[in-house]
Amino acid sequence: MQTITIGLLGLGTVGSGVAKLLQEHAAKIEQTTNVHFVLKRVAVAHLNKPRKVSLPAETSLTDQIDEVINDPKIQIVIETMGTINLARHAIIQAIYNHKSVITANKDLLAIDGPQLARLAQSRHVDFLYEASVAGGIPILRVLSSSLVTDQVSQVTGIINGTANYILSAMTKDSVSYEKALMAAQAKGYAEANPTNDVKGIDTANKLSILSQFAFGKALNPKKLGVHGIDQLTAEQLTSAKQFGYTIKLLAIAKRLDNQLYTFVGPTLIKQNDQLAKIDGVQNAVAIKSNALGSSVYTGPGAGAKPTANSILSDLVAAANDILDYDCGSAAFNNYHEVLKPHKLSELPQSYLIIAYGQSAKPSKQINWQNETSGQNYWSGLTPVITHEELVALVKNNHKINYLPVYNTYQI
Amino acid sequence: MQTITIGLLGLGTVGSGVAKLLQEHAAKIEQTTNVHFVLKRVAVAHLNKPRKVSLPAETSLTDQIDEVINDPKIQIVIETMGTINLARHAIIQAIYNHKSVITANKDLLAIDGPQLARLAQSRHVDFLYEASVAGGIPILRVLSSSLVTDQVSQVTGIINGTANYILSAMTKDSVSYEKALMAAQAKGYAEANPTNDVKGIDTANKLSILSQFAFGKALNPKKLGVHGIDQLTAEQLTSAKQFGYTIKLLAIAKRLDNQLYTFVGPTLIKQNDQLAKIDGVQNAVAIKSNALGSSVYTGPGAGAKPTANSILSDLVAAANDILDYDCGSAAFNNYHEVLKPHKLSELPQSYLIIAYGQSAKPSKQINWQNETSGQNYWSGLTPVITHEELVALVKNNHKINYLPVYNTYQI
Repeated sequence: MQTITIGLLGLGTVGSGVAKLLQEHAAKIEQTTNVHFVLKRVAVAHLNKPRKVSLPAETSLTDQIDEVINDPKIQIVIETMGTINLARHAIIQAIYNHKSVITANKDLLAIDGPQLARLAQSRHVDFLYEASVAGGIPILRVLSSSLVTDQVSQVTGIINGTANYILSAMTKDSVSYEKALMAAQAKGYAEANPTNDVKGIDTANKLSILSQFAFGKALNPKKLGVHGIDQLTAEQLTSAKQFGYTIKLLAIAKRLDNQLYTFVGPTLIKQNDQLAKIDGVQNAVAIKSNALGSSVYTGPGAGAKPTANSILSDLVAAANDILDYDCGSAAFNNYHEVLKPHKLSELPQSYLIIAYGQSAKPSKQINWQNETSGQNYWSGLTPVITHEELVALVKNNHKINYLPVYNTYQI
Repeated sequence: MQTITIGLLGLGTVGSGVAKLLQEHAAKIEQTTNVHFVLKRVAVAHLNKPRKVSLPAETSLTDQIDEVINDPKIQIVIETMGTINLARHAIIQAIYNHKSVITANKDLLAIDGPQLARLAQSRHVDFLYEASVAGGIPILRVLSSSLVTDQVSQVTGIINGTANYILSAMTKDSVSYEKALMAAQAKGYAEANPTNDVKGIDTANKLSILSQFAFGKALNPKKLGVHGIDQLTAEQLTSAKQFGYTIKLLAIAKRLDNQLYTFVGPTLIKQNDQLAKIDGVQNAVAIKSNALGSSVYTGPGAGAKPTANSILSDLVAAANDILDYDCGSAAFNNYHEVLKPHKLSELPQSYLIIAYGQSAKPSKQINWQNETSGQNYWSGLTPVITHEELVALVKNNHKINYLPVYNTYQI
C-alpha cells in the first residue's frame, strides 16, 4: 500500500462531498487501487463556520490557500472553491509547485482550460476535471479512453440539471416558466440568481469542454450565440407536444469534415428519442461516432456525491500517474484538430414557428408540415428551410418566434 | 512517436473490424496516444479464403497460431477466434511469452476469466476484455475507473442484442417467438443455432464478468438458474402491456451487505423505465451506486465495428502500460469481495401469473393487483409475495407460468 497526500481547497457542497466519500469509500478505494489517501489540509474561507462533514483527525483546517498549495508534502490539490480569479491563481501556483490538480470549475475551464492543461503538461503534473461536465457521468473519461480510438461526428448534451428540471416541470405540470423556476429554487435546484443556468451560459461552458474531448477543438463559449429557456412560452411547449416533440435545452456540436457546427438553446426533439425522456435534474450525453454509431450516457448532472465521485475518480487516476512517474502525459486532453467553427443555424433545418395575436399565421406561402392554433396564437412546423428562408419568414413580425427541430439538418 | 507491434488471432467479423478500424482511425489514434501500431501477423484458419478487409502491406497472414504467439517482436496479442479450448491455449501461451492479451471471448472469460487475469498479473502483462460485455458500451472501463471510487449496489443489464431484438419484435409487431426468431436470423442478428442467446446462457456469461467488475465477485454462470425467452407467449406479452409493463431479458445482480442476489431471465419492467425503451439490438447497463444514485449506459451491443472499437480502446490502454513499464498492475479487474451468492428469487417480489385453459385462474385467495383475461387464458399481477407463497400458488398446475416484476424486491 502506498500513500498519497492531498490538499483540498473549499469545503462547500462539493468539497464536503469529497471529504465525506473519501472516508466512506476508503476501504474499497484502498483495495482496488492499493493507494492510501491522506487528506492533510483543507483551506476554507471561514475557520469557525459549522460544517456538515467531520474531517479525519489527521486533517487540519486553514484559512490560507497558500498553506495548501505551497505545502511540500501535498502531492495532489483538489480545487472546489468555484469563482474564477482566485481559483486560477491557486491552480497555477499548485502546478508550478509540481502538484497535480483536480477541479470541477467549468467557468474557469471554459476560459482557460487548454492553457492550464498545457501548463500542467509542461510541469509534468496531471490536470483533471471529469466533474466539470455532467456531474456524475464519466463522459470526459469515456471520450478520452474508450472513444479515443473512434471518430466522433456529433455530441448532444442535456447538461444543465436546473434548466432540465424547469423544462420538465413546464412540460409535465403545464406551469409557466416563472412558476417552474420558483419551484426549482424552493427545492434547491436553482440558485437565487439563475442566469447562468437558464440563459444557457453554463451549458455553453460545458459544451466548450466537451468539444475539446470529442473533437480536439476548444470553443469560445462567448461566441456560440447561446439561447436560454427563460423566453419559452406555454404555447410553444403545447404545440411541440401536439406535433410529437418535447422541448429540451440542448448543447450540440456536429462535425462535418473540417467544419464544426455548434448550438446551445431550446430545441424540439422527437418524443421517442432517448434524450426526450431525460427528466428533472438528470443529465445525458449522446454521442454519434463512426465505430459505435449511437451511444448514450445518462446520470445525475449535479449534487455533492455524484460530483465528488467524479473528483475521486480523477484522484485515483492522478495517484496512479504519480506512482508510475507518468504525470502530465495522460491522454486526458491532448487531442487537437484544426476545425472551422460555425453556427448550426447555418445549416438548413426544420423549425417550429409560433406567432402570437389575432390572425397571426405568417402570410408567406410555405409547405407547413403541421399546424395548430389556440386562443391568440398560431403555430406550425416548417419543412427543412435555409437560414435565409427562415429570416424571410419571421422578419417584420416581432410577434413571431422560432425553435429549431433536432437532427433535421440537411447538408 | 513510439511503435507497438501487435498480432491478431482470427479474421472473422470482429478480427476484420479490428484490422479495418486500426487503419481507418490510425491518424487520430497516433495523434491522441502518440503510439504507432504495427499489425505484424494475423493467424487465420484458411489462408486462401477471400477476405472483406485489405490488410496493410506490412502484415503477413499465417495459418499457424504459434507464429503469432511465439513471435518475439509481437508485444500485444488480440484474440478474436472465439471457441474455448483453442483460445485458452493461445492466450496462456501468449501470456507465458510476456505478451499482453486482449480478447472478447466471453464464453472463455465466464469460465476462466479470474484465473487468466491472475496469470497475466503474475507475468506482468495486461489482460483486457472490454469487448466481452455489451459490445461498444465501455462498461468494464467505467466500472474499473470512474466507479472504482463508488459503491455499487445493483447492476441491471440488457446485454444480449439477439434476445432483445426478438423481444422487441414480439412486443411491437405482436408476432410469435418463432416468427421473431426467423426474422432475426434473416437479418443476421441471430445464429442458425440461437441457443446461447435465447436461453440466456450468453447473458449469464456476461453477468458473471460484470459482477467481477461491479462487486469484485465472479459468478459461476452454470449456477445462476438461467431462464430464456424461448418459452414466452403472446399472452404474457399482451397482459404485461395491459398492466403497464414491457418484458425484457434482464441480467440482475443486487448486493445487500455481504450477500449477492442474481437473476437472468425475462422480467416485467415498467414502461416508463429507461431500460424498457431499449429496443432492437441495442444494449444497456443500469448501475445503482451510493455516490451516483442511478446511471445508465446505452449503445450497440454487438457488430464488427463497435466490438472492434472496444478492442482498440484496450489496445491503447495496453500500449500505454507497456510504454510506462506498468503492465499487469492496471486496476482493470483487481477488486475482490467475499460475498455469498443467492438467487434473486429468494427475495419477496411481485409476479405476473398466467394460466392457460378454461377457468384457469388460480383458486388460491390472493389480493391481485391487476387482472386480465382472454380467450383461454387468465393473467394477474400479484402483490409482493415470498418464494414459498409463489410455489403454493403455482403448484399442481402445469398450465400456469410466472415472470418476476423488476425492482419490486422487499428485504
